[in-house]
Amino acid sequence: MTYITPITHDNNLFIGIDGGGSKCKAKLLSADHTRQGIGVSGRANPVQGFDRAIESIIDSASKALEDAGLSRRRLCDVTAGVGLAGVNLPSAFEQISNWNHPFKKMHLTTDLHIACLGAHDYKDGSVIICGTGSCGITINNTFTRIYGAHGLPLGDQGSGAWLGVQALSAILLSNDGLGPATALSDVVCDYLGTTPDQVTNLMINKPSKEFAKLAPLVFEVAEADDPTAVSIVKAGAGYLNDMAEMILDDHDSPLAMIGGLRGKMIEWFSPDVRDRICEPAHAPEDGALYYAKTQSEISQPNAV
Amino acid sequence: MTYITPITHDNNLFIGIDGGGSKCKAKLLSADHTRQGIGVSGRANPVQGFDRAIESIIDSASKALEDAGLSRRRLCDVTAGVGLAGVNLPSAFEQISNWNHPFKKMHLTTDLHIACLGAHDYKDGSVIICGTGSCGITINNTFTRIYGAHGLPLGDQGSGAWLGVQALSAILLSNDGLGPATALSDVVCDYLGTTPDQVTNLMINKPSKEFAKLAPLVFEVAEADDPTAVSIVKAGAGYLNDMAEMILDDHDSPLAMIGGLRGKMIEWFSPDVRDRICEPAHAPEDGALYYAKTQSEISQPNAV
Repeated sequence: MTYITPITHDNNLFIGIDGGGSKCKAKLLSADHTRQGIGVSGRANPVQGFDRAIESIIDSASKALEDAGLSRRRLCDVTAGVGLAGVNLPSAFEQISNWNHPFKKMHLTTDLHIACLGAHDYKDGSVIICGTGSCGITINNTFTRIYGAHGLPLGDQGSGAWLGVQALSAILLSNDGLGPATALSDVVCDYLGTTPDQVTNLMINKPSKEFAKLAPLVFEVAEADDPTAVSIVKAGAGYLNDMAEMILDDHDSPLAMIGGLRGKMIEWFSPDVRDRICEPAHAPEDGALYYAKTQSEISQPNAV
Repeated sequence: MTYITPITHDNNLFIGIDGGGSKCKAKLLSADHTRQGIGVSGRANPVQGFDRAIESIIDSASKALEDAGLSRRRLCDVTAGVGLAGVNLPSAFEQISNWNHPFKKMHLTTDLHIACLGAHDYKDGSVIICGTGSCGITINNTFTRIYGAHGLPLGDQGSGAWLGVQALSAILLSNDGLGPATALSDVVCDYLGTTPDQVTNLMINKPSKEFAKLAPLVFEVAEADDPTAVSIVKAGAGYLNDMAEMILDDHDSPLAMIGGLRGKMIEWFSPDVRDRICEPAHAPEDGALYYAKTQSEISQPNAV
């Protein structure tokens, strides 16, 4: 895939937005580079709630404007590149596309796409995201391929939300006398301020974000050699390790890994795979900013 | 537990309601036994939707009145015994209890409780339900204990919804190149009228009922020896077999199994456990009817 080099328009404001299952990050940059700002808001996966997603997009963008010393009212002057979790699903993509957004122009794509653009300095490559959800993408000259990105309960193996759900499930099995005792019970229930008897009532119907908060505890208990926690982490790491290996074997381009659980999860990968994963060059919101600029050029008939 | 023998009130109408994750069944019986009726409506698990649950309760009860040749307006003359999936969770129990229901009187309990009352001719015993969800209950003189009943994604192993989710997850893994090929892909996608690429978009955020519809296909493919389907059914059956074994070993009272998947699932149990499971004496809605009558007597100061 060849990307058109962005050209600048002095009075234009661009915002790159990276919206995931737990938070939404916006980065503003004026075309003349005199204004910069960052804004962070809550979860923005439309599959887990459309209203909440658009609220987080607007809120993060407004905060980025204010951080750059500009009024929230300038949203209507902003060209936004928006990369969201969940919009790999056509129904979610359509819903957000049809949104009567407050921007001058909105260019929508997946969180995977902007992550990949950012990670490989706007060139071809692959990315695995391990955050609230889990997924992978390969972008090259001839095709774009997405791996995973199915959400709970159908997929997202190895993600924060998946690790949290597996831990709670193991605690409930143990409490029912149908699974082995595990140190997860005390550690997770202490964190939640509850007892195993109350776990279902407390956690039922919670968004993925709330399950993902438990992931660091699952790693902690696994690192202390609790067999249940070890088997959960190994199952999740095995899935992502297999995904990484398949991507690396199938493509010559580099593979980066990003997301809040990147550091913890990669330690459980096979040494061979771990050594072949590169550091991301830029953050996903930088990829979204680049996407806003390049798509804006493409959509202007006299550009280039 | 001792149950008070119901005494009859000639002009009274009683309805027993069994509400689960896929359907809600109501049975009407007048105190003088001259009026009888059955009504069936949609899903009624308040954890999966409060509005839908109360709509199904009212609809099934109204249909039972009509089936008995009575007007829907007689709901206000009805004493209802209502056993619902999900109300083992205190938050759901409270929500339904606070509902401004249309009945003369409503006595609320779990679907497990009424199933157990019905299965053992209103005496002590245990029941395992394997339908849209999965769970177990033991009722005896000294205590009531519930096993499972945690819902998706935290539990419900071996249930219809769980089997459906496992099958879809295996299809997606296979389609991503991260799991073995399985005959489930063709069979389930043919049934859904879709392709593996579209499964996530079609099934994301669907209620448990829609996943449970796939369970008969999972058994069918397992019976044809597809290794993936066999391992899914074995994992679900293993959980319920362990639950049955624990209940049988811990209690002297009989254990019955009910629910839409009873027949299929019990074939995958160990012969020893299978032989120790008895047939239910009456249906859950009969248990609910009995509950309505006995609770009604208890709540009348001059009764007995």
